[in-house]
Amino acid sequence: MSSTAPIGVFDSGIGGLTVVAALHRELPNESILYLGDTARVPYGTKSPDVVRRYALTCSRFLVAQGAKMVVVACNTASAHGIESMRSTLAVPVVGVIEPGAALAARHSQSGRIGVIGTEGTILSGSYQSAVRALRPEASVVAKPCPLFVPLAEEGLGEHPATRLIAQDYLVPLTREGIDTLVLGCTHYPLLAHVIESVLGPQIEVIDSATAVAGAVRDVLREHRLEATHKAEPDRFYATDVSQRFYRVGRAFLGEAIAEVHHVDL
Amino acid sequence: MSSTAPIGVFDSGIGGLTVVAALHRELPNESILYLGDTARVPYGTKSPDVVRRYALTCSRFLVAQGAKMVVVACNTASAHGIESMRSTLAVPVVGVIEPGAALAARHSQSGRIGVIGTEGTILSGSYQSAVRALRPEASVVAKPCPLFVPLAEEGLGEHPATRLIAQDYLVPLTREGIDTLVLGCTHYPLLAHVIESVLGPQIEVIDSATAVAGAVRDVLREHRLEATHKAEPDRFYATDVSQRFYRVGRAFLGEAIAEVHHVDL
Repeated sequence: MSSTAPIGVFDSGIGGLTVVAALHRELPNESILYLGDTARVPYGTKSPDVVRRYALTCSRFLVAQGAKMVVVACNTASAHGIESMRSTLAVPVVGVIEPGAALAARHSQSGRIGVIGTEGTILSGSYQSAVRALRPEASVVAKPCPLFVPLAEEGLGEHPATRLIAQDYLVPLTREGIDTLVLGCTHYPLLAHVIESVLGPQIEVIDSATAVAGAVRDVLREHRLEATHKAEPDRFYATDVSQRFYRVGRAFLGEAIAEVHHVDL
Repeated sequence: MSSTAPIGVFDSGIGGLTVVAALHRELPNESILYLGDTARVPYGTKSPDVVRRYALTCSRFLVAQGAKMVVVACNTASAHGIESMRSTLAVPVVGVIEPGAALAARHSQSGRIGVIGTEGTILSGSYQSAVRALRPEASVVAKPCPLFVPLAEEGLGEHPATRLIAQDYLVPLTREGIDTLVLGCTHYPLLAHVIESVLGPQIEVIDSATAVAGAVRDVLREHRLEATHKAEPDRFYATDVSQRFYRVGRAFLGEAIAEVHHVDL
């Protein structure tokens, strides 16, 4: 495998582009191959077996396109599919659960850590297990925030309705005595401002996208796969291409996407 | 085809259960076969070709299970797939666009009619065409309200955040001089209270689910397929079965669902 090969990144939809934005920031020499499984989005409300099957299909596509490693930039797919991807694929696989959980476990003083995510991610218990694997005495308070995804996609990060809903979701968490909160969904960085404002300055917010970029760097070093220059332009694929992908994707990636290629999976 | 055969109803997910509730109310002798394509929900953000393919798969399943007619209880699938279903299937097909549009065209005094729905339904222009086909001089003001679906599914019909978002969506419509508004999405009856309250008493709200039940009655009469008694219990199928289907489905159907059968399509 060549070190100039691209990093494959997939998500159920557009949210994983916040992880690509973090990779751009932290690892500017790397080329990216992105796949959004937009024909089957969202994964968060689907059962584990269905999510596992979709995740394998997506990651196989990325490897077939020449990816030197696979980043599962979807919390639901990381929760349910990472083990089967690791046992099936010939390239390293990094999910979004472990890096954010590890950063929270290291950061928290009190050992009381909050996690928010989709219903699927929270019910899977994956963040809870990942934190406790690293810090067995930690207590994890997990809360599904299902409306944050559509609010982020509609660009309502600063809307008063988003603040009301964030208060409903988060004020109970602040009463649990947490000192650290993990944003366990790739959409949530777009709501970081309102989330931090509702939580107040005493609670540190951990963005899992940035944590993932750090984990990707470690894996590339370990396998001597770090690129020394950006060898090819980023490529974007989706299982269903719409104007929405360009419009919402621009907000998530932080820059315009020139072209999204359609792929049937 | 026997008149005691069930009516097949499908939707991309759970929303179509408001149409089943209307069929229960209006046609209590009919048995229902319901399919929620929950593995691929939502259709509203997907492209027309993908929606058309999914709609054909769902309706063929219902016919294979013995349905005497098919109700497309999904606005997006009605918008993009009804013509290909009508030309492919051997049973009558009723969608959710035409009945609601017809009721609005008959009801409106001023001829200024509002329609709200998902992005996919509104961009398809189907309500606009259906109203104008019946009343060419009518002017239709159409507005996508994408957050109404997740707000309905999360049971936030009475939440202050829902009122704020409803004001954003609907106050501009009231300034357009409409006297009638069609709820062009099967989820919206769960938000009828806040929608009516924001619109005020001057604007009549048309629930397309009730309009559909009337259209189904007409089709059954025309084909001499009306059941004289309920011959079998209702059956519920989903392409992905979750606790969520039971929980949210109960609110949409207005009664508990005993069992949801899984089907791979």
